[in-house]
Amino acid sequence: MSEQTNSNKIPEPALRRLPWYLSYVKLLNTQGEKFVSSTQIAKKIDVSASQIAKDLSFVNISGKTRVGYDINELIDVLEIFLGFKKLHTAVVFGVGSLGAALLSDSGLEQYGLKIIAGFDVNKSVVNTKTHQIPVYHSSEFLELNNELKADIGILTVPSGVAQEVSDYMIRCGVEGIWNFTPFRIRVPEGIVLQNTSLYAHLAVMFNRLDQ
Amino acid sequence: MSEQTNSNKIPEPALRRLPWYLSYVKLLNTQGEKFVSSTQIAKKIDVSASQIAKDLSFVNISGKTRVGYDINELIDVLEIFLGFKKLHTAVVFGVGSLGAALLSDSGLEQYGLKIIAGFDVNKSVVNTKTHQIPVYHSSEFLELNNELKADIGILTVPSGVAQEVSDYMIRCGVEGIWNFTPFRIRVPEGIVLQNTSLYAHLAVMFNRLDQ
Repeated sequence: MSEQTNSNKIPEPALRRLPWYLSYVKLLNTQGEKFVSSTQIAKKIDVSASQIAKDLSFVNISGKTRVGYDINELIDVLEIFLGFKKLHTAVVFGVGSLGAALLSDSGLEQYGLKIIAGFDVNKSVVNTKTHQIPVYHSSEFLELNNELKADIGILTVPSGVAQEVSDYMIRCGVEGIWNFTPFRIRVPEGIVLQNTSLYAHLAVMFNRLDQ
Repeated sequence: MSEQTNSNKIPEPALRRLPWYLSYVKLLNTQGEKFVSSTQIAKKIDVSASQIAKDLSFVNISGKTRVGYDINELIDVLEIFLGFKKLHTAVVFGVGSLGAALLSDSGLEQYGLKIIAGFDVNKSVVNTKTHQIPVYHSSEFLELNNELKADIGILTVPSGVAQEVSDYMIRCGVEGIWNFTPFRIRVPEGIVLQNTSLYAHLAVMFNRLDQ
């Protein structure tokens, strides 16, 4: 029962497509469907049936001839594989507008991410709470993380200090950095880095819209 | 003076890299630097100097031999090219935790996105304000958008209604959809679609962390 047997091999693009399948089969589930084939998924999602079957081969499920995948099983297996069923803890560095917004997005918890604290150097937010989540001075993290033991550091500081703050969070023990700044930070080997620059996505939209 | 002369040709991956360069040269600017070469940028960012030079060839700037690009000029030209200097208007459909978080992220405005209204069907949020931004009933958008004339519809509804709400926003006149749901929506030709699934990014982190 090792759901992650093949996970070493799953390439990031495949991994990123799995949530699309999950989202669609959850919808089918609410509509009372019991089975789904990769061909059916392909019809709704802009990915070929063979690619879908290949992507799903990384998770521990096998479809049945003619009927396809058992939807309940597929949802379970995908949620476990994607880590949504296990709660990971995170801290947010930089409680400006985006950081505070993330602190108030309780929806992340449904997907397995629990934000347990915020950190900032700005006196106006240090020692306050945002949506019940305490905000501390950044310098306190080194000591606090002995107890907090946060898995992930969310980076929403100004670009100019992004690298420095990322280095600090890693020194304090986080194993993954979720970088929301447009700055390309570097992390040592063994540390997981995920970049989500909303501004880069905006730039793509604007460029396409303005043509 | 047409900054977007070549923009028809810029591929999305190049476009997504431009904000990284912008972010870095803005940092250099605050440090008092005047010129920067693609080699210098390459040293700080995980992209080759030749790729950087190629990416920058899409924007209207030319480097000078030996000294490189004028930093002030590069910042200006990139901000214009990326659409950050022109204010685009957006509405948010689905004022749940993520939608409300986006309404409260005033930082987006610095990057050229002004959120002017929220829409929802939930009585507990309709006719309220979130960070001074009014929230209306979704059904009112068709009429309201005659005046609002929003460029972009931000989609933060439950996955099950993502396609339907996207279709509705397009019928009401938006030209771009920024999809934050994990659902793969489809849009007609001519409509700009940008997918930003935070959950897909989370899934990648979790999978890498849990190995």
